[in-house]
Amino acid sequence: MKQIDVCFTPDLLHLHTVENTIVVVADVFRATSCMVTAFAYGVNSITPVATIEECRQLQERGYLAAAERNARKVDGFELDNSPFTYMDERIQGANVAMTTTNGTLAITKSRSAVKVLVGSFLNLDAIVRYLKTDGYDVMVLCAGWKGRVNLEDTLFAGALVDRLKDSYAMAEDSAIMAWRLYAQGKDNLIGYMSNASHIRRLQRLGIQKDIAYCLQHDLYDVIPVLRGSALVNMDVK
Amino acid sequence: MKQIDVCFTPDLLHLHTVENTIVVVADVFRATSCMVTAFAYGVNSITPVATIEECRQLQERGYLAAAERNARKVDGFELDNSPFTYMDERIQGANVAMTTTNGTLAITKSRSAVKVLVGSFLNLDAIVRYLKTDGYDVMVLCAGWKGRVNLEDTLFAGALVDRLKDSYAMAEDSAIMAWRLYAQGKDNLIGYMSNASHIRRLQRLGIQKDIAYCLQHDLYDVIPVLRGSALVNMDVK
Repeated sequence: MKQIDVCFTPDLLHLHTVENTIVVVADVFRATSCMVTAFAYGVNSITPVATIEECRQLQERGYLAAAERNARKVDGFELDNSPFTYMDERIQGANVAMTTTNGTLAITKSRSAVKVLVGSFLNLDAIVRYLKTDGYDVMVLCAGWKGRVNLEDTLFAGALVDRLKDSYAMAEDSAIMAWRLYAQGKDNLIGYMSNASHIRRLQRLGIQKDIAYCLQHDLYDVIPVLRGSALVNMDVK
Repeated sequence: MKQIDVCFTPDLLHLHTVENTIVVVADVFRATSCMVTAFAYGVNSITPVATIEECRQLQERGYLAAAERNARKVDGFELDNSPFTYMDERIQGANVAMTTTNGTLAITKSRSAVKVLVGSFLNLDAIVRYLKTDGYDVMVLCAGWKGRVNLEDTLFAGALVDRLKDSYAMAEDSAIMAWRLYAQGKDNLIGYMSNASHIRRLQRLGIQKDIAYCLQHDLYDVIPVLRGSALVNMDVK
């Protein structure tokens, strides 16, 4: 039986081997939700980079630049970290360079996996359908917050475990924990997360609309996948 | 308001500062449950050491030697990793040297805290009563399993959060997650953990009796606390 494993934060990635595994990276608020939205709106590629400076260099070569640091926009860039800014016709066919506090790092750290997929509640069903046709073990890598675990990415991991539990064994307690938390909260995710730390940070920034959007399930039939140094849409390429 | 934080594994300790904090170390199956039992049965001190060799050296100096590697006993030592072996009159007034796979490491790594307390379900109420009289923030350090998170130590952390939640704020999502899991499982902890990884490991070793014992709440009114390199009973010394 295939296995599903959950890594709560990139700071625990050293305990896992990803070489024979499909890694699904989740940074629900909001990097991977932005990426999925961008592909749903026709972006050609997204290149995750580590620094704002690298982002600027790619911007000079014609990329749209997207950045977020500590959940805030960076000056002079076309796109920020709200998924709604990606619902724009400039996106269609464009190449985007993106750097975020947690999500892009998690993607970069997973490079040695068989495949690196970008997950969010928005494309959960697309991910599930793809994984069921595939022969590899799966690991969900939660982007977390500066190395710490967070509730929203764990709940995404739990949602994936929940939908795969009949065909995958839970590898370790982290998968069980994520699954149990999702089972407990799934009927009212917004209420369930109301006292979570990142929700509180985001609410201070006035973006409740983003939160509600990012928690919607199964909106888009796209799967961003890492090819070389850029994410492309698995369904298209 | 004081804060309560939860660190899911020693491999995430670098994200936390413990200098102004009381650390409660939990290795429910079974190191910290053994330690609490030993103090309840009158042990004088327990010295946590990193290696079996250090344990043997202290044994030559008159200590009782206790060791466990990968949940199994070590040859030639008086005590193993079952709490029942500590219910013995040899324990009374003795000094014990103990090395375990996860628990002793977690204690050693927390040395720079204001105080390092040893927690288990067995002395949960004693810990709670002490902390309420104390002015410092609290962090629960789950010993985990070889760096990975585990369900039983997380549930202990959740139990402590649950009992302190009126007088402490939850510092981060890890505290919320632990608390939510405990709330979900507390009415039947054994059943709740039946598919957890360490439970399965322990059941293969035939020690269901230890599991049931370690999940009992509030049996003993002792608090092992680190003084220098040894644990002593806070109530006694």
